[in-house]
Amino acid sequence: MHIPFARYLPILSWGRDYSRSDLGNDLTAAFIVTIMLIPQSLAYALLAGLPAEAGLYASIVPIMLYAVFGTSRSLAVGPVAVVSLMTAAALSNIVDQGSMGYAVAALSLAGLSGAILLAMGLFRLGFVANFLSHPVIAGFITASGLIIAASQIKHIFGITADGHNLLDLIISLGSNLGGINWITALIGLLATGFLFFVRKGLKPLLTKLGLGAGLTGFLVKLGPIVVVIATTAAVWYWGLDARGVRIVGAVPQSLPPFTLPSLSPALLSQLLLPAFLIAIIGFVESISVAQTLAAKKRQRIDPDQELIGLGAANIGAAFTGGFPVTGGFARSVVNFDAGAATPAAGAFTAVGLAIAAVALTPLIYFLPIATLAATIIVAVLSLVDFSILRRSWSYNRGDFAAVLTTILLTLAMGVEAGISAGVLLSVLLHLYRSSRPHIAEVGQVPGTEHFRNILRHDVITHPGIVSLRVDESLYFANARYLEDCIQTRVARDKDVRHVILQCAAINEIDFSALESLEAINERLREMGVQLHLSEVKGPVMDRLAAQHFLQQLSGRVFLSQFEAVQKISA
Amino acid sequence: MHIPFARYLPILSWGRDYSRSDLGNDLTAAFIVTIMLIPQSLAYALLAGLPAEAGLYASIVPIMLYAVFGTSRSLAVGPVAVVSLMTAAALSNIVDQGSMGYAVAALSLAGLSGAILLAMGLFRLGFVANFLSHPVIAGFITASGLIIAASQIKHIFGITADGHNLLDLIISLGSNLGGINWITALIGLLATGFLFFVRKGLKPLLTKLGLGAGLTGFLVKLGPIVVVIATTAAVWYWGLDARGVRIVGAVPQSLPPFTLPSLSPALLSQLLLPAFLIAIIGFVESISVAQTLAAKKRQRIDPDQELIGLGAANIGAAFTGGFPVTGGFARSVVNFDAGAATPAAGAFTAVGLAIAAVALTPLIYFLPIATLAATIIVAVLSLVDFSILRRSWSYNRGDFAAVLTTILLTLAMGVEAGISAGVLLSVLLHLYRSSRPHIAEVGQVPGTEHFRNILRHDVITHPGIVSLRVDESLYFANARYLEDCIQTRVARDKDVRHVILQCAAINEIDFSALESLEAINERLREMGVQLHLSEVKGPVMDRLAAQHFLQQLSGRVFLSQFEAVQKISA
Repeated sequence: MHIPFARYLPILSWGRDYSRSDLGNDLTAAFIVTIMLIPQSLAYALLAGLPAEAGLYASIVPIMLYAVFGTSRSLAVGPVAVVSLMTAAALSNIVDQGSMGYAVAALSLAGLSGAILLAMGLFRLGFVANFLSHPVIAGFITASGLIIAASQIKHIFGITADGHNLLDLIISLGSNLGGINWITALIGLLATGFLFFVRKGLKPLLTKLGLGAGLTGFLVKLGPIVVVIATTAAVWYWGLDARGVRIVGAVPQSLPPFTLPSLSPALLSQLLLPAFLIAIIGFVESISVAQTLAAKKRQRIDPDQELIGLGAANIGAAFTGGFPVTGGFARSVVNFDAGAATPAAGAFTAVGLAIAAVALTPLIYFLPIATLAATIIVAVLSLVDFSILRRSWSYNRGDFAAVLTTILLTLAMGVEAGISAGVLLSVLLHLYRSSRPHIAEVGQVPGTEHFRNILRHDVITHPGIVSLRVDESLYFANARYLEDCIQTRVARDKDVRHVILQCAAINEIDFSALESLEAINERLREMGVQLHLSEVKGPVMDRLAAQHFLQQLSGRVFLSQFEAVQKISA
Repeated sequence: MHIPFARYLPILSWGRDYSRSDLGNDLTAAFIVTIMLIPQSLAYALLAGLPAEAGLYASIVPIMLYAVFGTSRSLAVGPVAVVSLMTAAALSNIVDQGSMGYAVAALSLAGLSGAILLAMGLFRLGFVANFLSHPVIAGFITASGLIIAASQIKHIFGITADGHNLLDLIISLGSNLGGINWITALIGLLATGFLFFVRKGLKPLLTKLGLGAGLTGFLVKLGPIVVVIATTAAVWYWGLDARGVRIVGAVPQSLPPFTLPSLSPALLSQLLLPAFLIAIIGFVESISVAQTLAAKKRQRIDPDQELIGLGAANIGAAFTGGFPVTGGFARSVVNFDAGAATPAAGAFTAVGLAIAAVALTPLIYFLPIATLAATIIVAVLSLVDFSILRRSWSYNRGDFAAVLTTILLTLAMGVEAGISAGVLLSVLLHLYRSSRPHIAEVGQVPGTEHFRNILRHDVITHPGIVSLRVDESLYFANARYLEDCIQTRVARDKDVRHVILQCAAINEIDFSALESLEAINERLREMGVQLHLSEVKGPVMDRLAAQHFLQQLSGRVFLSQFEAVQKISA
């Protein structure tokens, strides 16, 4: 049966072959992911500056929409740390946190991000995300992790502090230190310590005790739930909320509500840049996880369809009380490891979270905010990885500069400034590099037909003939550089009568470079020097052949450099 | 004798060998250029919105400073049409034309442009100018020519009109048409018609009458001076200024005054972007002329030293009552054709203009503004060349888009918007192109060791081996595209056991691409596929060898694609 637009509905392909064993696998995975997601989604709502229930809502409908439109079999979509931080940074510039307008603006931000993702998917603009280089992403994630951890310290100590960059946060924390609530601090520090122990110490310990890898993994994943239950019980039993410990409090017992994002043009225009950055960052995080997991099963991810899946998920979040979401790394890996076979696992997770939203919310009334903060801190510190500085330094100073700039600007000025500067710098560095291409004067390696750099090899050259190899496509940014190089070389040596450009590494010649070649040809003719080309690639030759250049060329075009030198010197 | 900083003083090298014959040639050239420059420099001052004498001042000290610091033997520096237009556009946004502040702001603009040029020269940043692609420059010059011509129409008809883009100008002209001064219009139209005749009709006529090329050229160059003298005399004789014909009026009889540009931070920050664009555009115009003329005598231009020469000239203009200057095309060609042997010709021109400023200014009291406008219109219409649209269309749609955008935006929104959009678009197009490189699956051409595209050629392939040739350097913008391509190819065909990347066209691999290769290697390993490389260039190999990648590589690195396929299939 042919279904219109079926290419936009991956569910049709995997849904057709859905088997009983798939169902079993998906249900198991959904159960484990649900347990992991309950504290996480509450915590990320907190991080985004929203009431706790928004985290649950943001995990229900979006995950189902992704199951319909997404191509990854293992991706788990929902609130993630970096996107939640970006949400908070974007919104707090515009509306007061805690106000009604804040929650509505979060819906608008999700809707706008979703619309951007959807449009990019439909117009196949996924390549835009490629301009986030790996060093920029790594630097950004590390710096964001630090900022997120710093932003949660206030909750651990029960004080207030503001700011969306490290500097502001540290200053604000310092000036409010006097107000520490010691009971909150005790809960917060114990919870943090316990979670770190679960992550770093418990796993080796259980393995040493002879437990299987599966059971160990499951127990480790229970860690956050144990902390949530223990601290909630403690607050309830001793009535610590009356002694200044901030708690989650009353959460409505309901399925995700139907909500309408604000469409105010003033608000949307203020949210446009943050929404774009959230869309791109979310997409990059999501697609990296999805591709890594797909490769393990020799499956394939369609990046453009992924944009549509994530776009639908975010638009879903906008209409069901959520905030921007994307595919998360940790939860997707858990989903994959737990055996999720199809996106249906995501739909079952959504059902689990819906049950939690309806039935379990009274139980988290006494959950201390400090516990959620501890969950966030432990989760995000695993994102912090300064080794990218060392690795990029050892490979390439330009990439190192991009990482360092991204980290420093993100820490000092916030996420939007950091990522924008990183992208701009890496584009400029790339343009700079390609604007001064490697141009080698080459000569014939004796006894072969090969031509190599005269500075590195003992080669045969002919007086009167200069052979130059350009190791880069020719385009506007390096066209004039080539003019300079050739003019300098020929002006230096009055005996030169022939210049041969070996074009094997030239993948493209744009219109500027064509005009530069014409100018070079003309100027060399004025000097009484012929210009020849050798080893021109097929597509490049096709382009040149359609122009006057080849007729005007003072010299000839040769198939190989060897043939060129032989015929000219003869 | 060793002189410190001698490399920054090209005058030391040509000054040492200065001969009597050089002197004769330089004096002749200076005489002809002076006659040409008097009406031109008055007219361009008018175009820049300044009093006529500013044009003379801007041609005296700057030309001398360029003679000391510049490397071109033939370049004639002074006010030029496009830069004068940019000056008017930049200043009229900030200060009222005709006010004292306007002239001071013009000095600041010249000083700031000069400082930017100087800094770019000292830090060897001349490559920045390369980002103006040829199509963008051609489109910009054409559109500027039209705007300049349109801006002078009001002077031809003796009406008022405002605007720095074509739209505004046409609307403004239309609404003021009622105020035409018919005597002014007669003078203006006659002057324009005569100058067009001199340019297009007189030369063929004189040649037909058997005059030599040299004399013909000289007579043609006298055209503007003849018009200036005739119209000035007419106004004086019939007292036309009393009947509404606008004239140049009283011009101070003096050498260039010593002036101080304003250093107000508010003003300078407003002028920064225009000053930068003027510096870049001026530099590009100047260096193109200089290189073309230098090539004719097998001389060489040092672009970084040119920046210093033009920077000094503009700073000179700032302190002597001028405005931004650069090397002009028409006057440099005249200078070259007239036999200028060294930059001393420029210095002699400056002396000639200084004499004019002191002695001749009373004679231009009755010079009609309409005559100067006619000079400008005829000069700039020769810059208008729409053939760039056709030529770029036939070569490459992307380059065509850049030209068209530049022309349309310059005409509709002004010079700064046009050039900025053109540069941005050409950079984005370049990045887009290189973000989706040509990746061909290749096979062995029977009976050879060559590997060619399997879609274009009848080639031998081996089941289980996929050979891919990437026709582009690998960097962040295309790294993920390569991941997609390889994953898609391998997921499609379950028999694949080996992937060989033929790297002959890969001139560079940046850190992002390295990490992508690592990810590709890892994912292929998960799928049970080995990754091999072949024909890796020396510098690329050096980089890779310093990293862990080659140890982690599941396959091997081969010298040639042929060797790779032979050994793997064996």
